[in-house]
Amino acid sequence: MQRTERHASFGGWQEVWQHRSEVLSCDMKFGIYLPPAAVRGEACPVLYWLSGLTCNEQNFITKAGAQQYAAQHGLILVAPDTSPRGADVADDAAYDLGQGAGFYLNATQAPWAAHFRMEDYIVQELPALIQQHFAVTAAQSIFGHSMGGHGALTLALRHPGRYRSVSAFSPIVAPSQVPWGEKAFSAYLGEDRDQWAAHDACALIQSQLSERLPLLVDQGEADDFLANQLQPQRLQAACDAAGHPLTLRRHPGADHSYYFIASLIGEHIAHHAKALQG
Amino acid sequence: MQRTERHASFGGWQEVWQHRSEVLSCDMKFGIYLPPAAVRGEACPVLYWLSGLTCNEQNFITKAGAQQYAAQHGLILVAPDTSPRGADVADDAAYDLGQGAGFYLNATQAPWAAHFRMEDYIVQELPALIQQHFAVTAAQSIFGHSMGGHGALTLALRHPGRYRSVSAFSPIVAPSQVPWGEKAFSAYLGEDRDQWAAHDACALIQSQLSERLPLLVDQGEADDFLANQLQPQRLQAACDAAGHPLTLRRHPGADHSYYFIASLIGEHIAHHAKALQG
Repeated sequence: MQRTERHASFGGWQEVWQHRSEVLSCDMKFGIYLPPAAVRGEACPVLYWLSGLTCNEQNFITKAGAQQYAAQHGLILVAPDTSPRGADVADDAAYDLGQGAGFYLNATQAPWAAHFRMEDYIVQELPALIQQHFAVTAAQSIFGHSMGGHGALTLALRHPGRYRSVSAFSPIVAPSQVPWGEKAFSAYLGEDRDQWAAHDACALIQSQLSERLPLLVDQGEADDFLANQLQPQRLQAACDAAGHPLTLRRHPGADHSYYFIASLIGEHIAHHAKALQG
Repeated sequence: MQRTERHASFGGWQEVWQHRSEVLSCDMKFGIYLPPAAVRGEACPVLYWLSGLTCNEQNFITKAGAQQYAAQHGLILVAPDTSPRGADVADDAAYDLGQGAGFYLNATQAPWAAHFRMEDYIVQELPALIQQHFAVTAAQSIFGHSMGGHGALTLALRHPGRYRSVSAFSPIVAPSQVPWGEKAFSAYLGEDRDQWAAHDACALIQSQLSERLPLLVDQGEADDFLANQLQPQRLQAACDAAGHPLTLRRHPGADHSYYFIASLIGEHIAHHAKALQG
């Protein structure tokens, strides 16, 4: 594992590391923000950020403005890439399938199954690497945006006890029922829709077998993907039906961009800090 | 003039506008942040940001994290492009000459003189446009980074009374004496170095004919361009010799990136807010 970037940021370091992933069978990069507390040698809790379609490890660390809040609260922020990468890795010309569009699950179908195991990478391999190379506590939380909001919600729901808190910006809450998810799940999981429910936040909540963590979700009302891909009313209905705790906030005028994320990232990080340090 | 982007941001709007520039004889874009006070209809002061080499109107608005502080203080932020643009505009294959490298002066030499009139654009045409299309007070300040730090310092020094305050991150303080400036000034102003002093912050300060505004300058000590291009000790010496007020702060570990800018942008905006609203 080698560091490829290091920048002073709010009294800490914003770094980028590259490493060989055994799970994904390719080289991967991730961003990590080490707050002043970490620089002083204190073990810090880790908050994982999962990015959306087309993103890599750079988008969040350059655009979200999260470092100042992580510095204040003494949290380490880890921002992985959104899929396996490389010339040997299956891909698709479309922006919403293949590299840049891993959907945070383990693919079962050819040609994707060989590399596309993002669930194992995010839940197991990457945290183990972080624990090995940095001074961290056992406390972890997770949040993300759009496809990464889907990832945060489903990974938290599928792995009870793994995360202290979960939140999402503009998440894909019902991938089984919207075009982005139908395309990706058909490719990665096959045409048997029964297999899809295990990676669909609304279906997981309805099953009532999943983690019961309260969900914090922010959604812009001027988001171009709201009606067609995001449909937060499905999450509200699923949580209402299952009695699952949800705070869903709608923001007039806000779109799908990092400007929206930046405006609320401080509140989300404060939310996670309370859970991680409580 | 037409709006090409609009994003909700910290209770205000981050917008991008495109317009025909008469001064530059080309189409130009600029970013403008309208804080909540502006959205409520209040006239706000304007703080201009000048970006560095290779940048356009996007870098500052996506990476600096400035909007939250402009929102708090009720300032409008305007972030123009760094040069004239377009297929008809002279250019050079190098990153440090031509498009993306206007150096905030009016070129006198062919082939640059036809379009490269960034001083007139920043000091006259753009403020007139802003005043015409947005509710602004007469108060203006200016700051910038690297080549844009040079721009902020020299434009403030060359136009006494125009700006209420000036600051810079990692500025080129003595372009007449470093490779970036020597290359650009030779091309834009010609080989007669006597013409260069009028666009060199250190020379302007030494002349003691310029604006006497206090200068606030932050410089990273891990900046790759520190020794070769930036040389802040020249600014310190010029200000000491002329009795020009200067606050020059050096930051161990900090580099030339927007991570450094973001870490201190709140302090700079508070500095300008005090001058603009005092």
